[in-house]
Amino acid sequence: MARIVMKFGGTSMAGIERIRHVSNLVKREAEAGNQVAVVVSAMAGETDRLVQLCREAASLYDPREYDVVVASGEQVTSGLLAITLQGMGLNARSYMGWQLPIRATGHAAALIDHIEADVLEGVFEQGGIAVIPGFQGVTADGDLATLGRGGSDTSAVALAAAMKADRCDIYTDVEGVFTTDPRIVPKARKLRAVTYEEMLELASVGAKVLQTRSVGLAMRYNMPVQVLSSFEDRPGTLIVGDDAIEEMNMERQLVTGIAHDKNEARITLTGLPDRAGTVAAIFAPLAEANINVDMIVQSVPRAGKPSDLTFTVPTASLAHSVAALEKAKEEIGFQEMLTDLNVVKISAVGIGMRSNAGIAAQMFQTLAARGINILAITTSEIKVSVLIAEEYTELAVRVLHTAYGLDDTGEAA
Amino acid sequence: MARIVMKFGGTSMAGIERIRHVSNLVKREAEAGNQVAVVVSAMAGETDRLVQLCREAASLYDPREYDVVVASGEQVTSGLLAITLQGMGLNARSYMGWQLPIRATGHAAALIDHIEADVLEGVFEQGGIAVIPGFQGVTADGDLATLGRGGSDTSAVALAAAMKADRCDIYTDVEGVFTTDPRIVPKARKLRAVTYEEMLELASVGAKVLQTRSVGLAMRYNMPVQVLSSFEDRPGTLIVGDDAIEEMNMERQLVTGIAHDKNEARITLTGLPDRAGTVAAIFAPLAEANINVDMIVQSVPRAGKPSDLTFTVPTASLAHSVAALEKAKEEIGFQEMLTDLNVVKISAVGIGMRSNAGIAAQMFQTLAARGINILAITTSEIKVSVLIAEEYTELAVRVLHTAYGLDDTGEAA
Repeated sequence: MARIVMKFGGTSMAGIERIRHVSNLVKREAEAGNQVAVVVSAMAGETDRLVQLCREAASLYDPREYDVVVASGEQVTSGLLAITLQGMGLNARSYMGWQLPIRATGHAAALIDHIEADVLEGVFEQGGIAVIPGFQGVTADGDLATLGRGGSDTSAVALAAAMKADRCDIYTDVEGVFTTDPRIVPKARKLRAVTYEEMLELASVGAKVLQTRSVGLAMRYNMPVQVLSSFEDRPGTLIVGDDAIEEMNMERQLVTGIAHDKNEARITLTGLPDRAGTVAAIFAPLAEANINVDMIVQSVPRAGKPSDLTFTVPTASLAHSVAALEKAKEEIGFQEMLTDLNVVKISAVGIGMRSNAGIAAQMFQTLAARGINILAITTSEIKVSVLIAEEYTELAVRVLHTAYGLDDTGEAA
Repeated sequence: MARIVMKFGGTSMAGIERIRHVSNLVKREAEAGNQVAVVVSAMAGETDRLVQLCREAASLYDPREYDVVVASGEQVTSGLLAITLQGMGLNARSYMGWQLPIRATGHAAALIDHIEADVLEGVFEQGGIAVIPGFQGVTADGDLATLGRGGSDTSAVALAAAMKADRCDIYTDVEGVFTTDPRIVPKARKLRAVTYEEMLELASVGAKVLQTRSVGLAMRYNMPVQVLSSFEDRPGTLIVGDDAIEEMNMERQLVTGIAHDKNEARITLTGLPDRAGTVAAIFAPLAEANINVDMIVQSVPRAGKPSDLTFTVPTASLAHSVAALEKAKEEIGFQEMLTDLNVVKISAVGIGMRSNAGIAAQMFQTLAARGINILAITTSEIKVSVLIAEEYTELAVRVLHTAYGLDDTGEAA
């Protein structure tokens, strides 16, 4: 017997037929003798619809009232799933965030403070199944709070930690975490397991499987998370600590996955004066505007000569960034500002990199051999990222996937 | 300065444009210096959609979970109205049923026990506007509860009573209470005022303006209710006590309104044995099946001879009624069961009837003069109802409206 959280995303809850299918998955786990809490998202598209209504109601909507409106989507699906489970003869009940309660702070992007597990312990003692809406909680003032888009993953992991679950299964519309996007590389392999750190890096560079926050939370509580498909009856990918992977006795690849992220825009400032404070003058107005600067490359300044600086920002922030920099043009003293949306960040992620210095060099050589020019580079302990022209995306991902030995050879991973 | 409840139905809340219009009506009352609480229904069609989802999820759905699902519709509109009011510069906030709280007992058709007014008093002290979802409350166990279809009218009146409001304005898609259905009689007049008793009788015989329960509650607390249109800027109809109508110095009509109700089906049992217990044997199985029997006519039994019995049931209960009676056929001992869906109940309602015995006679004569056959009759202190063939509906309503002097003559009512 295990104690598990099962979380189902919007596509898994999109309509009664799908909810019935989800109920069968829950039933199987319950009948196997497990103690089960289920966390559900709103039906696919419903949260978008509710957010749109808030926007139409007033351009500057009150986050407290926004939460009242958007929390309703998960309320509906949790009631419907409880009804469907009961219809199959299971002892299921829904518990809203304010009923457990799930204590949270803030609005629209609230943080979970604490989840009371007492109600759930009572449910499990009586052999029941608890159905809990994801994405929501209740503030100290007794107001509804929502956790920000994709927050149901975080709800599921936080709940698993609170009820000391053996694992948290995140059912979604993909089969797990792949070595790279299978739409680009048909030879991509589903990974049996990745570490929390690898998953965090992969999520941060475009592998949209789990909300980054939920991975961080799982790492903090060392909660095993499984990502799997609610549409295919196969094991998914385990996201666990380094030690757990050691125990699984898996042969370690140096590189675990290749990700790409088109959500980058490049800005180059030319003719920057060679004086102290120039770089600070550039990034201060961007920080004030809450813009995340990612990759930064500075041409080596020669004494007394003007230099260039290149960096990237999220695509959606490009217009704001340009405006902020134009405003500070005099203070910064640049000659020209060049922008480029047709770039992509390609990243290789793998915990094996820690002990192998050749990974970055292999990436540069592999890309150079195809004539792909590298516009910027960043590295972390377990990641190497390069910025290249967007038109090379598929080619770069494919050749790196092969170069790092990730192609599916038909053998078990 | 007055303290008022404003209640808006589903058509008034159907989309952001309409909610903006509602906000203007609320703003006007607030800026006139009134203390305002607003009760809202779900967007038109939304509750039907949610009920349908519950039905699809399981044929015998749990009323507790049904309440979780359907309560979401009013949650959405109350948040959206609060946002829209704030966008107009007003100090508005939503309060869910469980936040006030609105204490209720039961599920799916719960009854309101008590509404705490403390939170609202605090809101009014600070010059705020409270937006409250209709139709919902919270049980002693902390579960969501809904009040049954049309329950938002009851929420509004109960809230008005709890906060000792001066009046409760029910905004809807009709202009008020009319002497009869204006689609049948273009000369129908909007009534300036009716008594609670008259409104109860009119509602029970087909005038679908307010939920019957809400009228009973208003009568109990002597809470003045105004029914008016959110689309037309005109006074509606006041529903008040007998004494208040006296004070308004209105000329009293003997008959206040004519209503018709097609939701009646006739059942006739023939050849009933002349023995004690026959009538009980007929109505006991119907009562067990929770079927409301309305009009009853028994042919005068002659000693030792079989007799007939005619009665009506709601159209939706006809199939159940027939099944229940067929099952008890041997015990009852009837020869034949005849059913007829093509009947209509026409009612004249008026508090003036109490002191005038001629109203019923006038009805029978007026219908007889047009050759309309009366199939059954029931009367109460302030109502006369007859059952006739459905094809005469419009003719009967029109001639009675004229006979009782209700036609609009162009003078103020």
